[in-house]
Amino acid sequence: MAGSGFGTIFRVTTFGESHGAALGAIVEGCPAGLPLSEADITPFMARRRPGQNALSTPRKEADEAQILSGVFEGKTTGTPICLLIRNTNARSADYEHLRDVYRPGHADFGFSEKYGIRDHRGGGRSSGRETAARVAAGAVAQILLRKLGIRCEAWLSAIGDLPIARGAEISAGSPSACPSAAPAMADVSDSINRLLQRLRETGDSVGSTVTLSVTGLPAGLGEPVFDKLDANLAKAMFSIGAVKGLDIGDGHRAALSYGSENNDAFRMEDGRVVKASNHSGGILGGLSDGGELRLTVYFKPTPSISRPQMTVTKDGAETELSIHGRHDPVIGPRAAVVVEAMAALVLADALLVGMSSRLSDVESFYRARLTP
Amino acid sequence: MAGSGFGTIFRVTTFGESHGAALGAIVEGCPAGLPLSEADITPFMARRRPGQNALSTPRKEADEAQILSGVFEGKTTGTPICLLIRNTNARSADYEHLRDVYRPGHADFGFSEKYGIRDHRGGGRSSGRETAARVAAGAVAQILLRKLGIRCEAWLSAIGDLPIARGAEISAGSPSACPSAAPAMADVSDSINRLLQRLRETGDSVGSTVTLSVTGLPAGLGEPVFDKLDANLAKAMFSIGAVKGLDIGDGHRAALSYGSENNDAFRMEDGRVVKASNHSGGILGGLSDGGELRLTVYFKPTPSISRPQMTVTKDGAETELSIHGRHDPVIGPRAAVVVEAMAALVLADALLVGMSSRLSDVESFYRARLTP
Amino acid sequence: MAGSGFGTIFRVTTFGESHGAALGAIVEGCPAGLPLSEADITPFMARRRPGQNALSTPRKEADEAQILSGVFEGKTTGTPICLLIRNTNARSADYEHLRDVYRPGHADFGFSEKYGIRDHRGGGRSSGRETAARVAAGAVAQILLRKLGIRCEAWLSAIGDLPIARGAEISAGSPSACPSAAPAMADVSDSINRLLQRLRETGDSVGSTVTLSVTGLPAGLGEPVFDKLDANLAKAMFSIGAVKGLDIGDGHRAALSYGSENNDAFRMEDGRVVKASNHSGGILGGLSDGGELRLTVYFKPTPSISRPQMTVTKDGAETELSIHGRHDPVIGPRAAVVVEAMAALVLADALLVGMSSRLSDVESFYRARLTP
Amino acid sequence: MAGSGFGTIFRVTTFGESHGAALGAIVEGCPAGLPLSEADITPFMARRRPGQNALSTPRKEADEAQILSGVFEGKTTGTPICLLIRNTNARSADYEHLRDVYRPGHADFGFSEKYGIRDHRGGGRSSGRETAARVAAGAVAQILLRKLGIRCEAWLSAIGDLPIARGAEISAGSPSACPSAAPAMADVSDSINRLLQRLRETGDSVGSTVTLSVTGLPAGLGEPVFDKLDANLAKAMFSIGAVKGLDIGDGHRAALSYGSENNDAFRMEDGRVVKASNHSGGILGGLSDGGELRLTVYFKPTPSISRPQMTVTKDGAETELSIHGRHDPVIGPRAAVVVEAMAALVLADALLVGMSSRLSDVESFYRARLTP
Repeated sequence: MAGSGFGTIFRVTTFGESHGAALGAIVEGCPAGLPLSEADITPFMARRRPGQNALSTPRKEADEAQILSGVFEGKTTGTPICLLIRNTNARSADYEHLRDVYRPGHADFGFSEKYGIRDHRGGGRSSGRETAARVAAGAVAQILLRKLGIRCEAWLSAIGDLPIARGAEISAGSPSACPSAAPAMADVSDSINRLLQRLRETGDSVGSTVTLSVTGLPAGLGEPVFDKLDANLAKAMFSIGAVKGLDIGDGHRAALSYGSENNDAFRMEDGRVVKASNHSGGILGGLSDGGELRLTVYFKPTPSISRPQMTVTKDGAETELSIHGRHDPVIGPRAAVVVEAMAALVLADALLVGMSSRLSDVESFYRARLTP
Repeated sequence: MAGSGFGTIFRVTTFGESHGAALGAIVEGCPAGLPLSEADITPFMARRRPGQNALSTPRKEADEAQILSGVFEGKTTGTPICLLIRNTNARSADYEHLRDVYRPGHADFGFSEKYGIRDHRGGGRSSGRETAARVAAGAVAQILLRKLGIRCEAWLSAIGDLPIARGAEISAGSPSACPSAAPAMADVSDSINRLLQRLRETGDSVGSTVTLSVTGLPAGLGEPVFDKLDANLAKAMFSIGAVKGLDIGDGHRAALSYGSENNDAFRMEDGRVVKASNHSGGILGGLSDGGELRLTVYFKPTPSISRPQMTVTKDGAETELSIHGRHDPVIGPRAAVVVEAMAALVLADALLVGMSSRLSDVESFYRARLTP
Repeated sequence: MAGSGFGTIFRVTTFGESHGAALGAIVEGCPAGLPLSEADITPFMARRRPGQNALSTPRKEADEAQILSGVFEGKTTGTPICLLIRNTNARSADYEHLRDVYRPGHADFGFSEKYGIRDHRGGGRSSGRETAARVAAGAVAQILLRKLGIRCEAWLSAIGDLPIARGAEISAGSPSACPSAAPAMADVSDSINRLLQRLRETGDSVGSTVTLSVTGLPAGLGEPVFDKLDANLAKAMFSIGAVKGLDIGDGHRAALSYGSENNDAFRMEDGRVVKASNHSGGILGGLSDGGELRLTVYFKPTPSISRPQMTVTKDGAETELSIHGRHDPVIGPRAAVVVEAMAALVLADALLVGMSSRLSDVESFYRARLTP
Repeated sequence: MAGSGFGTIFRVTTFGESHGAALGAIVEGCPAGLPLSEADITPFMARRRPGQNALSTPRKEADEAQILSGVFEGKTTGTPICLLIRNTNARSADYEHLRDVYRPGHADFGFSEKYGIRDHRGGGRSSGRETAARVAAGAVAQILLRKLGIRCEAWLSAIGDLPIARGAEISAGSPSACPSAAPAMADVSDSINRLLQRLRETGDSVGSTVTLSVTGLPAGLGEPVFDKLDANLAKAMFSIGAVKGLDIGDGHRAALSYGSENNDAFRMEDGRVVKASNHSGGILGGLSDGGELRLTVYFKPTPSISRPQMTVTKDGAETELSIHGRHDPVIGPRAAVVVEAMAALVLADALLVGMSSRLSDVESFYRARLTP
């Protein structure tokens, strides 16, 4: 069905398979007048690009998003922006042995049951590579948010049970491929290095955690019932492959707490309503509450592992499978920018949808247009 | 905006405030020919109805859903089913002191910022009472699922840090208002009683957890990218007020595990593909994988507490607030049926949307209609 | 499927059958702060109400729309507005002989093929009575439009080949039931009376035409491609039962004209861009052009006639059918307010959706909210 | 806003400007297993391609649609199909003089009011060239319809007041560029030639008419209220630029007729319900009635004419304008395939959406999947 579209006013529709000619996205509803160039998108793509360090697959892709429409003389025109990303380094032959086998932890069996036919090359449409289109589209949303003074940032906050501080960048070219920014992280870097080394030796993978923070949001974003801001964010996050858990604010820990602890008191500061704490993660009753938006996304381990696993073929034969492709041992490092992109898409849409909730705003908007 | 609708083919749209004339829902897209009566809906409403035990507000509401359309001679006709629930026991005067104050942990401040106007009585549209309409609509979805042999069940699985076993019903009329079914639960009952007693004494509330299990689902339900089955379930769950966390399958614990543990091996059983374990919770790559669908929802504590809290008024004055209304000290007991309802709505829609994914099915469906 | 909803931000969802308990609508997305009462809706309902004169069915229905939600202390709150219209004068037994027969010109056969089951009483969901819910919802849209200085008016412009001037009201109680306002219409009144008399004698019905005019619209409403303003209006008009043709501006006559005639020259007037003529009917390239919006809707004759017709039963037997119910001999008189309602729904939605098309507007809207 | 998408299950989203890098479409929801290649799409593109004869602009475009995704080993996979059409022969400099002027009969003024910015080159997004993406997407829908035995065909049925018989092809290369197939059309050919000659001499354009016929449709397609089959077709047709009128079946002439004439009697034929006539054009009450679907679309004259016209600039200066670009003097000849494409998109969607309207069908579909 239609299921590759997301959003109401600011809406993205994606296409593309891991080993097809290209992936891409159409971004509808971006307001006219936003300065936008391919160079603005490149830094976002770079954060997701494979082949950066020991944490990611050695598949090399330029991952440049080309703008095919919707931009004229350096600014958006209000018409759909098509973003195209060519696949250049697909090695489809690597996947021939997977044509008829269902990989554990993957969508293969579900695809076969649903469609009866399946592009087995690199996971086809359900490849992690599909997120390249989201990042390109999310970059447009991010650039819009920044214009409005909203800062949306996600980072890898844990590999397995090893927490990573915000701002600790995964160093790109380093042989250690571990957090480098903060000196205090040295121990963690060592621990991560040891973990990665063990994964390489055992042909295994591990789970990870990504945290998102958004500041500068107005209060009152979102809709009260089904289109709550957290509901749309939750859909956005679980639409990313391998996500298995989500916390908004205190998240699952809120279920252990008391009301007197969990409630955030309101108080006044410089004439504005602010909260004394932020257990809510910036959302109350589905609407932004003016505080920092904070959520945590939990990724399962990469399902493609070289350790032998038991599985079945599409003809119903049981078999043993070892997957030797180009796969990240941890999903989080390259997924942080995807989390950020999906959040930005949700927020851009909520901002545009939210402009008509008060009659007084609608009236002043149109009175200005209708009176000479 | 439009934000009170949910679903594509099987779609529900709700309306109503806590202290207005009525709440209700329109259910579109229910297939024609389903036996349906008001009596079929009553048992679902009863599980959410207030005033049942010490765990829930003493507000008494009949909560009978009247069917106004879409059913003819005992069967659905395919046209929209309107379900109406009258409010009969609203005591709006109880809320007069809340007219101008923002309750911590509630949507009040966000509503004021968004709309500039607010029905303060009982939380208005963002009251937990809004879920009565979801339960009525979800009952229709549940009845449809059962016709297809699909069993969808949610239960209160923890109050604070006290786990509760499946099947341990919260006994309705009992003074203890605690799990009664399983003898082995006696200790837990005692613990819960002590916790509730303490909450009453301190004017506090506590968080809770609800678990959902669905069996009998075909594999391949859901859409690969943004409309993943887990993405739509996540939206459904976070659209319920007070939900702060969600796990699908192993959930947040998957982030701590290794791929070799987390992957579920496939094997054959009676000529069918089955999984040897279920870390995935029945969903892989956004599609049902044929296993049991299992998810856990984390509720924050009821934000309405009688302990004094600091907050502000809409005029920017700081004030102390004690909320003395009729509120549940724990959200989970009455929310389990809401979780079930939202899951059933997602699944009913996925089932109907999923009928056209293979050309061979479309062809055989229409060839039968077009050939004499 | 979901198919009873209409609109994106300002969205209406309807329910109800001719002979069920009630009909109604949920209106989502109406901005908060609009003064609204049941009395405001009554005049619109009155124009559609049956039993007014010789042009309409003698079925008497109070047709009062009750507001069940979304209004607090006389103003809309931004939450869904449920409008309920009880059926009080259904005489279902009148329709028993139609239970198994397909009425020519009606949806009966299509319903049977689609759903396998059919509420035959008064046409069920496909009764003209379904439009009562549209008129109630359209009234809310109209009240919003008026606040913005937009005037939306439809009138019966022809019965068969007899044209009727704007402002010539169909006199309600008069035995002639024909246009009364304009003295110059005397001849037409006589002609209409003679036509109606002939229809009564022959048990026949006749087609009609309704014209819509909207003034005060800003230029630039609508979306360039699939959601063109005229596209959405066309859908709205053809969603009304019995509509078979539509002209926007010159309409079908434009196909006979030359570009040099059909193009409307632009010129300046009081510092504003205006058009020297209005062949376009106020829409160019899918966007409002600042001129009067004008369209004409063509209704087929009422299909329920008492003259004998050949048809078949659901069991495949050929039979002769004479329909003796309570039916209008002409659809247009009561349909004018339905045309107006549907147009108002389209325009209200376009106005709200259209607020975010320029970055400068989005920026100034949110900068005001975010800066203390 | 999002406004470049169309459809629910079978959904197309388009992008692209006349003088940008490319145009294209994403087709979602096409069932898996449909044989599809670029060569299958070419014949449809050829019918819309410019530069074919005296009736069309001399701008030469290869107009080849490249398939970037959704097809694997010659068959659709169920995932989105991206179709890309490169712009190769844009001569943007031709349009420099139109940068600041509003062309009469075009969307220029509305675009400026809506977006504040405008890609003036060749009409930008509101160019007729935008329909190339629709034709490519419509080709996929057409190929699906043919698999189901449904034949959807549109043809130029009049130029101005000169009617053209079905099957009278506009001869591509001929200097006369007029209907050639039928000898009986010779007089019409002469008339058309004379008309075109006169238009060339006077720098003018003329209106036209396109007729659509669809055979092989099952009865019961469409939804009863807002998503009536005719409502969706009407939206589809008016979403095509320059369409000003639409008739379904008898269309506007139905408003002049009597019920006894306009109703189509049902009768039995070979054990099937058929209609004795087809005034309805194959749709009753919004549902297909089993008869031939027939509609007529009325196009205004091409608004770009070289005769001088009065207009204004965006700075409010009145000016005279002569448009010397590469424009068709009549829109209909190349628009017929666009009408066909839009109809095919509506029908493909209605067919897929319509599979779940009966419980018995849903049950038998899933019982087969769930029982070993």
